[in-house]
Amino acid sequence: MRGVFITFEGGDGAGKTTQVRLLEEWLTERGQEVVRTFEPGATPLGAEVRKLLLHGGDEIGAIDPRAEALLYAADRAQHVAQVVKPALARGAAVVQDRYIDSSLAYQGAGRVLQVDDVRRISDWAAVGLWPELTVLLDIDAETAAERRRQRGGADDRLEAEAVEFHEAVREAFRGFADADPRRFLKLDASRSIEELQQAIRARVASLLDD
Amino acid sequence: MRGVFITFEGGDGAGKTTQVRLLEEWLTERGQEVVRTFEPGATPLGAEVRKLLLHGGDEIGAIDPRAEALLYAADRAQHVAQVVKPALARGAAVVQDRYIDSSLAYQGAGRVLQVDDVRRISDWAAVGLWPELTVLLDIDAETAAERRRQRGGADDRLEAEAVEFHEAVREAFRGFADADPRRFLKLDASRSIEELQQAIRARVASLLDD
Repeated sequence: MRGVFITFEGGDGAGKTTQVRLLEEWLTERGQEVVRTFEPGATPLGAEVRKLLLHGGDEIGAIDPRAEALLYAADRAQHVAQVVKPALARGAAVVQDRYIDSSLAYQGAGRVLQVDDVRRISDWAAVGLWPELTVLLDIDAETAAERRRQRGGADDRLEAEAVEFHEAVREAFRGFADADPRRFLKLDASRSIEELQQAIRARVASLLDD
Repeated sequence: MRGVFITFEGGDGAGKTTQVRLLEEWLTERGQEVVRTFEPGATPLGAEVRKLLLHGGDEIGAIDPRAEALLYAADRAQHVAQVVKPALARGAAVVQDRYIDSSLAYQGAGRVLQVDDVRRISDWAAVGLWPELTVLLDIDAETAAERRRQRGGADDRLEAEAVEFHEAVREAFRGFADADPRRFLKLDASRSIEELQQAIRARVASLLDD
């Protein structure tokens, strides 16, 4: 078995968690060690950083956009160094919910920072590690919001942003996928869970059997 | 009165805190609004980040060098945006204990990261804001360690590093000062408090009266 790094991207409510779990199940059945993980917040340091980013509240106040981007990058540096790289080195499949593309899409849609700056910093944080495969679960903002409502629970700060923001995020993700079809598998997330998982497994199988 | 940004650099035990306070006193007497501040940790967000950096302890574990550099940069971005720039814009003198040169000297002495990378990220965090004057209190590592012992209190993680590390930091600071005498005032920190403050006030006066 060889190490392989697969990331899942898309708005909240696109179904990433479900698809990640089903892929983990299938890979495990194939005899592959799987490390299922996510950003931000999968390391002890990252969990503290995530608290500041998403639930800082009144004590912290508004977070400057550059500080925010740098905190996400710090979470990424710690995660790549302590979780992702060691797992890949021992031949595991790393199946990850959100990575660099999320930083680029969300920061880009925010229109305050230059996407190229965010990419440069993220790339440095990750010591140049990009995934072999990125599954984009593409969903329109209205449907995603509806699914989040059904799922219940309070929206965090990012989820609560306006529909226009989520549409801009979606367009950014689609742009990345269209520009790099070799790395991306773009799927219409309104399809059934089974259909989506079948398409994902087919692509992963062809990657691993190469 | 015009805004002016003055930073103090040097190893712990060099006397930065004392000199910063005396300069604040004198500038205030001259009728200047003074914002005395420091990095890391001067904003509510920064204080949380500082806790992670210096006193993370067992729950956090080892911090990856890139994550560490990015956390310092996040603290800087928040501090510059919320404290330093607004103060300068309203004509205050910002007198600050540690800034970008500390990041460069300590990270450079650690010899894990490229100093140019750290400079690029710090400069982005600070939106290109560099001080007009940087006072370097130059002191040998042995004397600084002795002063810290006299001062009492537990050394934090950085202070507890070996003498060779502190010598490398000192050499880095001296190199920056020698390369940029227009920005730097390099002083032998073994001189008396009064002599040092006199030299600092003379330089600041010439800056403000320009």
